[in-house]
Amino acid sequence: SKTYKIAIIPGDGTGPEVIKEGIKIIETAAKKNDFKLDFTDYDLGGQRYLKTGEILPESVIEEFKKFDAMYLGAIGHPDVKPGILEKGILLKLRFELDQYINLRPVKLYPNVETPLKDKKPEDIDMVIVRENTEGLYTGAGGFLKKDTPQEVAIQESINTRFGIERCIRYAFKLTQNRAKNNKLTLCGKTNVLTYASDLWQRTFNAVAKEYPQLKSDYVNVDATCMWFVKNPEWFDVVVTDNLFGDIITDLAAMIQGGMGVAAGGNINPEGVSMFEPMGGSAPKYTGLNIINPIASINAGAMMLEKIGESKAAKDIDNAVIKALESGKIKSMSAGKMGLSTTEVGDLIASFI
Amino acid sequence: SKTYKIAIIPGDGTGPEVIKEGIKIIETAAKKNDFKLDFTDYDLGGQRYLKTGEILPESVIEEFKKFDAMYLGAIGHPDVKPGILEKGILLKLRFELDQYINLRPVKLYPNVETPLKDKKPEDIDMVIVRENTEGLYTGAGGFLKKDTPQEVAIQESINTRFGIERCIRYAFKLTQNRAKNNKLTLCGKTNVLTYASDLWQRTFNAVAKEYPQLKSDYVNVDATCMWFVKNPEWFDVVVTDNLFGDIITDLAAMIQGGMGVAAGGNINPEGVSMFEPMGGSAPKYTGLNIINPIASINAGAMMLEKIGESKAAKDIDNAVIKALESGKIKSMSAGKMGLSTTEVGDLIASFI
Ligand SMILES: CC(C)[C@H](C(=O)O)[C@@H](O)C(=O)O
Ligand SMILES: CC(C)[C@H](C(=O)O)[C@@H](O)C(=O)O
Repeated sequence: SKTYKIAIIPGDGTGPEVIKEGIKIIETAAKKNDFKLDFTDYDLGGQRYLKTGEILPESVIEEFKKFDAMYLGAIGHPDVKPGILEKGILLKLRFELDQYINLRPVKLYPNVETPLKDKKPEDIDMVIVRENTEGLYTGAGGFLKKDTPQEVAIQESINTRFGIERCIRYAFKLTQNRAKNNKLTLCGKTNVLTYASDLWQRTFNAVAKEYPQLKSDYVNVDATCMWFVKNPEWFDVVVTDNLFGDIITDLAAMIQGGMGVAAGGNINPEGVSMFEPMGGSAPKYTGLNIINPIASINAGAMMLEKIGESKAAKDIDNAVIKALESGKIKSMSAGKMGLSTTEVGDLIASFI
Repeated sequence: SKTYKIAIIPGDGTGPEVIKEGIKIIETAAKKNDFKLDFTDYDLGGQRYLKTGEILPESVIEEFKKFDAMYLGAIGHPDVKPGILEKGILLKLRFELDQYINLRPVKLYPNVETPLKDKKPEDIDMVIVRENTEGLYTGAGGFLKKDTPQEVAIQESINTRFGIERCIRYAFKLTQNRAKNNKLTLCGKTNVLTYASDLWQRTFNAVAKEYPQLKSDYVNVDATCMWFVKNPEWFDVVVTDNLFGDIITDLAAMIQGGMGVAAGGNINPEGVSMFEPMGGSAPKYTGLNIINPIASINAGAMMLEKIGESKAAKDIDNAVIKALESGKIKSMSAGKMGLSTTEVGDLIASFI
């Protein structure tokens, strides 16, 4: 039986707690499907940075390249200045490992409450494909006359045809393999970002020609946010740039029931990918065994899918649905589940 | 009795229809409050551009400076390439007339349906202050190696301490005059836009010191979108940059019941300001007398407030509320109101 090498980054706050349940579940699915997982722990995050001053050594990035996948809890610490851990760990990993796709399946599970009126599981079922290595996330920019009344701050969005095209191709392929409407929507702001969004639009139109059987359309980012709330059923697959992707994936997480269920992958289709729950380190819930591990478990399923164990991924997805249908989990919010973090993990494991 | 000079830009599509009702209402309020409005029509928009090739002559911009306010229907035409009318008219007016504040009151009126569960009028009541002349809207950027596989598109966000500070000051003053929580929230993305959002954050912190009696906090733009949907009651006044403002004001329009009610102002506190309904030109509803004029009427009320006729503005706001409370308007959506555009205008006029 096959063995996969998985790098684990439990990280900060509630990260270790949710990763523990995630490991429980993917181990159970691995046993059932007759493959093995070989875990290596990496201590990275705000906690470690504050203790040692070290963020992410280059040598560790090289080590990650040898794994089949990476599994992340959460990175973030209230005592660390915004930007340091993001640029030093999260964005650094995305860029250095060329994880150029940020993949966010958005699905309303049974018995999960959405803040939207009259929307059922079949209405909220889409995938967002976010470009993950360009745009406003490159860090390009600078200050002029800093700390004077004449200060100017410039932030640059850098976009390449190469980077956009590989992302759009990925999105078209994914759309082709989805059951739903087989529609790919480009989300941008062509009427204002007449350089960045224009390149996106031209690339999208060019690649669309290779998929004449698929529908494709364009929606401005402001309108996308409106329709996510009013008519989420209009969407199947959405492709967008890094910053718009950041915004619309979080909005989408909320309409699918919040951070308790939302999972994502930072994907290098030809290399090593990293999977994570979308929630942060949630300092105030840390160590209380009350955080919802479902997002982390969903991220685990995405990881198994990526390494080629689709059957095991499907088993986890089905188990999550059965656990939710059982009605035993009262809410998706930390502290209100009616069960502990560990109990939710055990419940889901029991359905595999 | 005083006379105010108002420039009217009915514009494209349903613009003229909603402006007609808006004029009906502000005229009624003017009569009641004993002042006069002197209207001058300007034919600008996509229709005119397609016919004459002319977008916005410099001489017209100079004329606008002599008015007390400007009142806009809608600009936008499906046959005009995205960016032309936006850059040529809408953004040009904002920049040339230095309308550096985009003001968006967000209020759930009685009997207006929000797509959010369990939210009442008192839960959705905030004001968004969007910087309107900088950031990613400057048009700075360019292409390299256009139309080759090596193409690069750069879009620049340019932010000045001057531009940010005047916007933040405006927002603090506005917060001080609001009844609600007296809280100002800065919306940005400090953990990624470490130049642009950093300057915003530093400026915000500096000005906040002058308002020790007001609460102030910071929320990332992605989280802002989440909380707008989940906990809109947490917000009082939100201040943000041009692009984030574009996104969150549209999301906010949806939660307050859609484009039928959402109004905004492009404000130069020391000069001439322009008021408009947030909806577009709505080509498919044009000429049918079925578009909702309430947003345009609300924009008219904002205009009267700005020129100093607060009592008349309040009269209009009360009349809108009474019209909605009457239950005679069945929906806020075009074609579903149960009344025509004209009838909604008449109904509101009857309550002044
Ligand atoms: C933590 C932050 C850098 C990150 C982002 O903005 O991409 C997060 O919000 C996400 O969406 O993964
Ligand atoms: C039409 C467009 C240029 C404009 C913007 O992006 O600012 C609009 O969406 C708005 O919010 O007023």
